[in-house]
Amino acid sequence: MIAPAAPAFVPLDPQFEQRVRGSFARQPFMATIGARLGTVEPGRVEVILPFAEGLTQQHGYFHGGSIGAIADSAGGYAAFTLFPADSSVVTVEYKVNIMSPGRGEQLIALGEVLKSGRTLTITRVDVFAEAQGKRTHCASGTQTLFCLAGRSDTRA
Amino acid sequence: MIAPAAPAFVPLDPQFEQRVRGSFARQPFMATIGARLGTVEPGRVEVILPFAEGLTQQHGYFHGGSIGAIADSAGGYAAFTLFPADSSVVTVEYKVNIMSPGRGEQLIALGEVLKSGRTLTITRVDVFAEAQGKRTHCASGTQTLFCLAGRSDTRA
Amino acid sequence: MIAPAAPAFVPLDPQFEQRVRGSFARQPFMATIGARLGTVEPGRVEVILPFAEGLTQQHGYFHGGSIGAIADSAGGYAAFTLFPADSSVVTVEYKVNIMSPGRGEQLIALGEVLKSGRTLTITRVDVFAEAQGKRTHCASGTQTLFCLAGRSDTRA
Amino acid sequence: MIAPAAPAFVPLDPQFEQRVRGSFARQPFMATIGARLGTVEPGRVEVILPFAEGLTQQHGYFHGGSIGAIADSAGGYAAFTLFPADSSVVTVEYKVNIMSPGRGEQLIALGEVLKSGRTLTITRVDVFAEAQGKRTHCASGTQTLFCLAGRSDTRA
Repeated sequence: MIAPAAPAFVPLDPQFEQRVRGSFARQPFMATIGARLGTVEPGRVEVILPFAEGLTQQHGYFHGGSIGAIADSAGGYAAFTLFPADSSVVTVEYKVNIMSPGRGEQLIALGEVLKSGRTLTITRVDVFAEAQGKRTHCASGTQTLFCLAGRSDTRA
Repeated sequence: MIAPAAPAFVPLDPQFEQRVRGSFARQPFMATIGARLGTVEPGRVEVILPFAEGLTQQHGYFHGGSIGAIADSAGGYAAFTLFPADSSVVTVEYKVNIMSPGRGEQLIALGEVLKSGRTLTITRVDVFAEAQGKRTHCASGTQTLFCLAGRSDTRA
Repeated sequence: MIAPAAPAFVPLDPQFEQRVRGSFARQPFMATIGARLGTVEPGRVEVILPFAEGLTQQHGYFHGGSIGAIADSAGGYAAFTLFPADSSVVTVEYKVNIMSPGRGEQLIALGEVLKSGRTLTITRVDVFAEAQGKRTHCASGTQTLFCLAGRSDTRA
Repeated sequence: MIAPAAPAFVPLDPQFEQRVRGSFARQPFMATIGARLGTVEPGRVEVILPFAEGLTQQHGYFHGGSIGAIADSAGGYAAFTLFPADSSVVTVEYKVNIMSPGRGEQLIALGEVLKSGRTLTITRVDVFAEAQGKRTHCASGTQTLFCLAGRSDTRA
């Protein structure tokens, strides 16, 4: 297989799922593009993006910018599941390799924590395109996240 | 200064600006987020993103996904200015380091070609946030683009 | 698990292992740092780097540069296993996130092909540090490789 | 030009140059590959790598691993010039795009700080190959560094 089994993470905050879903719902950009959360587990989050004409590039496929946006979001929230309750998550950097066109009924971005630290968390992000029940590995990358401890996500 | 002067590029296609502006206009996702082209020069393209509530994350700043989207677009079109007339541009990969929050009236993404090859082009992308006339360097990265020769950008 | 099962690759060149081992042996830099090849399978290559004082940084761990060097090498040769006989491999770009210090008796870099194309191949690279039989995930990243078809690896 | 003028940095530690040169001299790996420091200024460091047969790949050019190693080193020490006296620098991640073969009498890696923060510093790294007095832009990338405050670089 491609990589060793993911470490089993124990979240610091038992309310992690509710905290992640609340934060996601407060992001107007995710509503603008029509993204929604799938699975939310310790260190592992899915973001789903159904196809819409308004998300495409000139050839009718998902725009690379929409692929990157949900990759960044899935990885960021995967990290956030393991953060303490009173904290915020900030993306330091991310990189994506786009391996095939974003073609199909929906994209699924999967973010998974590779290393969870007090200040920095490293995630792997993979994006899959689903067309007629078939999944294609569309993009892959890694991301670095910063934990702003004591800076609640709900504070403006 | 940070880097050597950009090489002077001579575009293969004298109609490069019209070709870039036409392609940008055919990308529904750019209209969805409200992005528009600024300067279009050989090997150098600006994409401007005016602030809108629908582009923000939970703290009211530009979402990281919107920052990445215009960075990818600016770099891709900078490469495209130097491509032959009958070709398309595909993003192979991009990486962005986000250095400060996307806060202000607008973002300006600047894509510049570092190396122009027959098949692959490498660009540098920088994103600046403008607030009350002051520019902050918000993000920086590099990107790899692929030239699909003989595959017109206008063909569906 | 972290990622979907690796696709099963069928090499174009049945002599792929011999070709990879021959090329590796012709790289003086790999001899300089003392790296050697481990497993060589279709789309999957290990590079092993035993500890040596001359590979360290100021705290006595493997230098980040030696971690990156074997990551680049493992990914490049993983791609090369799937190339045609009369070709060369060139690294377009690579990124590594270093997740923990390179501490131990040896490093093992594992390169795996995510997407194999005619011109471009995308790999994932992971580096593990082995200390007293225990493996630590030390670094992870992705890489883009270019296939120079018709340009034999043995030609100077 | 490619990028805005570099910000003028004021180092926290007036002995920054001596501190950087001392740290570099304690890295056995830099001696192994024969790298030496060039200019050391606030937020800007050059690492020079003279050609040696032992640094090459199979075609006789500088190995990609040696290019990445001095890029990482130049960026890391550029960040370190701005750190407080009693601190260490750790590479979080780096990415390099290799734009042309490393061919010539020497490589020069230039690391420059884009953003200096209390915990994280972002640098841009460029590598040039010098052959018969002519410089070729060989590689470019960005890097994230972590400041270990209170952890002296000289402590084993």
